[in-house]
Amino acid sequence: MGASKKVPIPGSFLYDPALLEGLDWTSVNNLLSPSITNTEPGEQWLLVRPLQLEDYDKGFLQLLSQLTAVGNVNRMTFERQYWAMQKSGGYYVTVIEDTRNRRIIGAASLITEYKFIHEGGLRARLEDVVVNNTYRGKQLGKLIVLTVTLLAKKLGCYKMTLDCKDTLIVFYKSLGYKLEPGNANSMVIRYDATPS
Amino acid sequence: MGASKKVPIPGSFLYDPALLEGLDWTSVNNLLSPSITNTEPGEQWLLVRPLQLEDYDKGFLQLLSQLTAVGNVNRMTFERQYWAMQKSGGYYVTVIEDTRNRRIIGAASLITEYKFIHEGGLRARLEDVVVNNTYRGKQLGKLIVLTVTLLAKKLGCYKMTLDCKDTLIVFYKSLGYKLEPGNANSMVIRYDATPS
Repeated sequence: MGASKKVPIPGSFLYDPALLEGLDWTSVNNLLSPSITNTEPGEQWLLVRPLQLEDYDKGFLQLLSQLTAVGNVNRMTFERQYWAMQKSGGYYVTVIEDTRNRRIIGAASLITEYKFIHEGGLRARLEDVVVNNTYRGKQLGKLIVLTVTLLAKKLGCYKMTLDCKDTLIVFYKSLGYKLEPGNANSMVIRYDATPS
Repeated sequence: MGASKKVPIPGSFLYDPALLEGLDWTSVNNLLSPSITNTEPGEQWLLVRPLQLEDYDKGFLQLLSQLTAVGNVNRMTFERQYWAMQKSGGYYVTVIEDTRNRRIIGAASLITEYKFIHEGGLRARLEDVVVNNTYRGKQLGKLIVLTVTLLAKKLGCYKMTLDCKDTLIVFYKSLGYKLEPGNANSMVIRYDATPS
């Protein structure tokens, strides 16, 4: 089942790809039409999997630059962050690859956080969601967000949160995220001048 | 300077207490009256320092329960989370101790997150801020939030964010946090029924 059967992928993953097997898509069946899942993403050449070191050469950073300022990230910086994430644990950076041209065309990150509250629980965050503009109309934004949202549930997180612009509220509402009345504010201090 | 001179503290810290030395309070001088800092918190018996294992016996969890649901966290669970945070890195849980009665009376957490964006930057979050109700009027809420906010700057983070209720917006605005127009939404999916 899943990723490893479709194409043999050399090298390591940022996290165990087996975690993406057996996600409970029945609970979100009604949110996608036609129905797709991370293991059956609608087109046979699409592959949903954890980030790999090799994704530096598959346009992962170029994809992120459609989202926000990436700046000057060379291979050494990319690998430094990759290994820091893997060592730390809790970083579930997940991508969609178009295996025809070996390009990363979608990404979303689940980050988990240990808590003392909630019975010593695990909290989840959604970060850095982006899908290549030229792949619109395939529900890939919904697919990648739901994939990591279901993964957070599988990991036992008690909640998953995200910060977003006004223009994205409708999208995330369609996937089950809520603005809780009186408790939906995200505030920021920026230590440098660059947005996001 | 700082914590170690005031009282000898046995045992380990969640993070290096030297990081709390030399924070740049000049940049936020105008936000506190009278002026206090983490090393000079206004009363000689107050101590601002990283979380310790011993804080389980100093009422740390009882303090958190003033904030939200803590639930059943025994010593084993507390220590499990403490060591998981220390192993992961990036958890700067900071407390205020009243050394007269050895009770934790304030807390705030800075959590850092590795990013690929922003030149492979480090992002900061503010979590789980609470000050004991009976210590009001001493600016300790401002003190503990500014302490970790300045620590994030010292660590080289490019921004620090927080999620909060409507009722706390004024407080955080007074400390320099902003609601950015069109980009100040926090959304949530809860996997269990318990709030926060």
